Amino acid sequence: MAELEVYLSGEIHTDWRREIEDAVTAAALHIAFTAPVTVHENSDDCGVAILGAEENKFWADHKGAKVNAIRTRTLIERADVVVVRFGDKYKQWNAAFDAGYAAALGKPLIVQHDPSLTHPLKEVDGAALAVAETPAQVAAILRYVMTGEL
Amino acid sequence: MAELEVYLSGEIHTDWRREIEDAVTAAALHIAFTAPVTVHENSDDCGVAILGAEENKFWADHKGAKVNAIRTRTLIERADVVVVRFGDKYKQWNAAFDAGYAAALGKPLIVQHDPSLTHPLKEVDGAALAVAETPAQVAAILRYVMTGEL
Amino acid sequence: MAELEVYLSGEIHTDWRREIEDAVTAAALHIAFTAPVTVHENSDDCGVAILGAEENKFWADHKGAKVNAIRTRTLIERADVVVVRFGDKYKQWNAAFDAGYAAALGKPLIVQHDPSLTHPLKEVDGAALAVAETPAQVAAILRYVMTGEL
Amino acid sequence: MAELEVYLSGEIHTDWRREIEDAVTAAALHIAFTAPVTVHENSDDCGVAILGAEENKFWADHKGAKVNAIRTRTLIERADVVVVRFGDKYKQWNAAFDAGYAAALGKPLIVQHDPSLTHPLKEVDGAALAVAETPAQVAAILRYVMTGEL
Amino acid sequence: MAELEVYLSGEIHTDWRREIEDAVTAAALHIAFTAPVTVHENSDDCGVAILGAEENKFWADHKGAKVNAIRTRTLIERADVVVVRFGDKYKQWNAAFDAGYAAALGKPLIVQHDPSLTHPLKEVDGAALAVAETPAQVAAILRYVMTGEL
Amino acid sequence: MAELEVYLSGEIHTDWRREIEDAVTAAALHIAFTAPVTVHENSDDCGVAILGAEENKFWADHKGAKVNAIRTRTLIERADVVVVRFGDKYKQWNAAFDAGYAAALGKPLIVQHDPSLTHPLKEVDGAALAVAETPAQVAAILRYVMTGEL
Amino acid sequence: MAELEVYLSGEIHTDWRREIEDAVTAAALHIAFTAPVTVHENSDDCGVAILGAEENKFWADHKGAKVNAIRTRTLIERADVVVVRFGDKYKQWNAAFDAGYAAALGKPLIVQHDPSLTHPLKEVDGAALAVAETPAQVAAILRYVMTGEL
Amino acid sequence: MAELEVYLSGEIHTDWRREIEDAVTAAALHIAFTAPVTVHENSDDCGVAILGAEENKFWADHKGAKVNAIRTRTLIERADVVVVRFGDKYKQWNAAFDAGYAAALGKPLIVQHDPSLTHPLKEVDGAALAVAETPAQVAAILRYVMTGEL
Repeated sequence: MAELEVYLSGEIHTDWRREIEDAVTAAALHIAFTAPVTVHENSDDCGVAILGAEENKFWADHKGAKVNAIRTRTLIERADVVVVRFGDKYKQWNAAFDAGYAAALGKPLIVQHDPSLTHPLKEVDGAALAVAETPAQVAAILRYVMTGEL
Repeated sequence: MAELEVYLSGEIHTDWRREIEDAVTAAALHIAFTAPVTVHENSDDCGVAILGAEENKFWADHKGAKVNAIRTRTLIERADVVVVRFGDKYKQWNAAFDAGYAAALGKPLIVQHDPSLTHPLKEVDGAALAVAETPAQVAAILRYVMTGEL
Repeated sequence: MAELEVYLSGEIHTDWRREIEDAVTAAALHIAFTAPVTVHENSDDCGVAILGAEENKFWADHKGAKVNAIRTRTLIERADVVVVRFGDKYKQWNAAFDAGYAAALGKPLIVQHDPSLTHPLKEVDGAALAVAETPAQVAAILRYVMTGEL
Repeated sequence: MAELEVYLSGEIHTDWRREIEDAVTAAALHIAFTAPVTVHENSDDCGVAILGAEENKFWADHKGAKVNAIRTRTLIERADVVVVRFGDKYKQWNAAFDAGYAAALGKPLIVQHDPSLTHPLKEVDGAALAVAETPAQVAAILRYVMTGEL
Repeated sequence: MAELEVYLSGEIHTDWRREIEDAVTAAALHIAFTAPVTVHENSDDCGVAILGAEENKFWADHKGAKVNAIRTRTLIERADVVVVRFGDKYKQWNAAFDAGYAAALGKPLIVQHDPSLTHPLKEVDGAALAVAETPAQVAAILRYVMTGEL
Repeated sequence: MAELEVYLSGEIHTDWRREIEDAVTAAALHIAFTAPVTVHENSDDCGVAILGAEENKFWADHKGAKVNAIRTRTLIERADVVVVRFGDKYKQWNAAFDAGYAAALGKPLIVQHDPSLTHPLKEVDGAALAVAETPAQVAAILRYVMTGEL
Repeated sequence: MAELEVYLSGEIHTDWRREIEDAVTAAALHIAFTAPVTVHENSDDCGVAILGAEENKFWADHKGAKVNAIRTRTLIERADVVVVRFGDKYKQWNAAFDAGYAAALGKPLIVQHDPSLTHPLKEVDGAALAVAETPAQVAAILRYVMTGEL
Repeated sequence: MAELEVYLSGEIHTDWRREIEDAVTAAALHIAFTAPVTVHENSDDCGVAILGAEENKFWADHKGAKVNAIRTRTLIERADVVVVRFGDKYKQWNAAFDAGYAAALGKPLIVQHDPSLTHPLKEVDGAALAVAETPAQVAAILRYVMTGEL
């Protein structure tokens, strides 16, 4: 397979994306990785920073969430494969939302999380074509999918 | 509007569904409500109970999640409107997954949760056509949508 | 043709819908007519009345528009035929929006307006399978479509 | 995000498109902007100029509107993001039609207009992922969506 | 199979539809047959009769063709199976158009024509799941499809 | 869940369908079961019996396969759930074809076969929401999906 | 508009395609024109030449029509715009079939034929965004659609 | 036709793919061929090798089949044409599954197998646009489809 576009959804406060990207770079694969905005404060503030302040926090969040959705929906639609990572912090409902969105579009889905999260993530895992425990496994899957090599 | 099919996703350990259904019954509306299996232990055990025990908990959960998906995907596909409720317990990633799934299918989405959850649910709320704080508001929306009366 | 579901979009302050419905009733046709909420103040107020007041008029309108969209999108999706009427008052951008929405879904579209509006409505008319000048013509089209009689 | 295709619908007698394009060029972003034909007389005359004169003004408009639709539908289908601008002149039903068309296709929609138009545009705004007051805000959104920078 | 909706497209000046319907009635099958308007003069005149005369014959035909399309597209979309009959008179491009339209929608297609037309109809036949020579064969196919009996 | 339409694909020389249907009838569930034509000789002969003999066996089979496809595709498209059974006889490529067809349409898929066939059926099983070993398990799944009871 | 892919369906025994292509080349437009196989005998013989002779002329035509469909369906699916030309010879049902196929896919359709064919082509014309009388007009439309110049 | 993407599904223990690719290379055609992983042991082991061992052979196969599906579904979705080869060994249910999957997506399908398999493959053949007996015929079809030459 000559090229692949992979959307990396979920956790934005650790460097799991770089771990996958480094492994893929080392294997010289043509994978275009995309992601949501990973600068947390920009992701939170973009709505009010660009479109004006809101007194009500709900609308401040609402404007920001929708501006971010312009990016995330475009990238999920374009992606060949969607990877969703769940970490040990925060509610991460947006990650689960992305997984549901990708599943309904029929995108091949890889979910990555610690085994301790297996039970609450069972519905998300059930929609995935692979459930990995580590970013290294995700990279290995992408490498195998493109090259057929183990 | 003569009839409506509404899927009620999310929290299964409180009686929020009945609250909505009772209000709708009182208004004599023809709404067919559907839901996931709300008997928690059955929902957890269905895979192994029907298809055989698993030593590995991951596969036990996996089998169950997929059997439940036969029901939930069928009902979400059929629904005119999808309501997703987030409570104050559990991870509720399946609820967020359903919201993403419904959004990608273009289903009108109503999300219901306490205002304290606004920030972590902002992406889910951003995809909704209404964000309600109480089941009574959900019922009022459904009543208005069908009758045009406030 | 045994039955038809027709969505009547647009102008809500005249009785054009009843004119069509009366003509159809007289012809004993099984047409289920649907429409947006036509009580103007309810349509404007539904968001804040059900989901709470807003200081900012933009959000008051926003909440209302989205609650109404739960109804209108459901009905447009269900409709076999969409009729859009443009009158001589108001901006009527919602009517043109509905026409575009219906066109993109491939719904057969009938537009009805006074000939004086031909030029500014040319793009909307260009997407229609019939452009009528009067509600009576719309009724005649529906009667012909179902019975084949002129 | 490496590249984006953005369709700029609506008002053709001011230079709002150039304002956005200049801001984007200054930021060195790879955005391919597309638009309807913005030479007003060509847009009006194309049908009869190419396909022959019509005595009846309705058909002259009709032929032109459809020839323009070959361009606009192709570009809306291709677009990643659709921006619709409403100004203070003309009926602009074609702009609202495009917004509805884009919404039904699930395209991320940005609407831009003066706050004075909020009430009549509430249904269109309700379908948008961002409602901007100025072209500069639209440019800022596109810049953020591609780079994540504020 | 409990019921079937079958659209009978093509030739309107012979009684081939009745032949199929009679055979199906004799077999007590629940098939809802639909068809274009088969009163030739009404089909030709409906546009101008309802929406006003046209000096230019092209527009007279255009208006009629589009009004008829409200019926035919609705019925083809609804149909489980589309049957297209080609006779020995007229150009019948509308029948071939219907066949292409049904094929693109993935509708099971039955084509019926005399063997003498095999060569010019080879592309249409190539898209069909059955090519019959007589209406009796079409009826036999429908009977078999519903009952499994030969 | 009030009603369900289930297509039972695969093996036609044993009574596995009746086993499922009897269990469902005993549970008083409203499930409409559908199936391919299960009279083997009719299924093989339908093409030539209705549309005329063929010297070349390939075309005899071809005509029959396509006539049967009118039935099977209609029923798979309509089905809420598709069950595919693999037995111990014949090549059963049509069963695997149906499974692939249903999977691409996003239909919830239940596969039923003896554990001895696990390895060669792994790709088909991988696309299923449940892999059962017996018809009784399929019936139990359908019962649970509709009632939530174990 | 930077580039366009245009499928030229219909008549293969005159040089109408070259007339359009020459005009487009002269205008230095980036249009990729595609077409069915226009060597008549190859188009007729491809099935039997590659896949083996058939005694029955029906199957010879059938094999050829399907091999050609591999090309034509691929190109129609890819096309931004579909042009269908009707000449004065042959039945041309394949051209009308292509028009219906393109219409159902929502492809912008341009039909080109002599005015003498207006009445029998009214249903095909009714589905088109432009009806041209000459190849030069088709070229002018494509030039206008891409450049906005008349 | 300038380029084509062709997915070669089925048999992985003979060199039929190379035979087609060599013939195409000799003809200097721009065809991008894709395929499942054809190293049999890697295809079988990929799940457990990357994601961890399983005691139960069912889950070992299951994990592998799903990892492979990330590749195969991506490539089938991308393909313009899908070729499925059936040989004389193994059950080959995955090949039939791919054929059904491709058929439901509307992909032009070429099936290649020995005439001795005609009867059990009749349903698969019935969904194909060409049924070839040899890889050389497949190459000839692809050459003709792209160049129009016999």
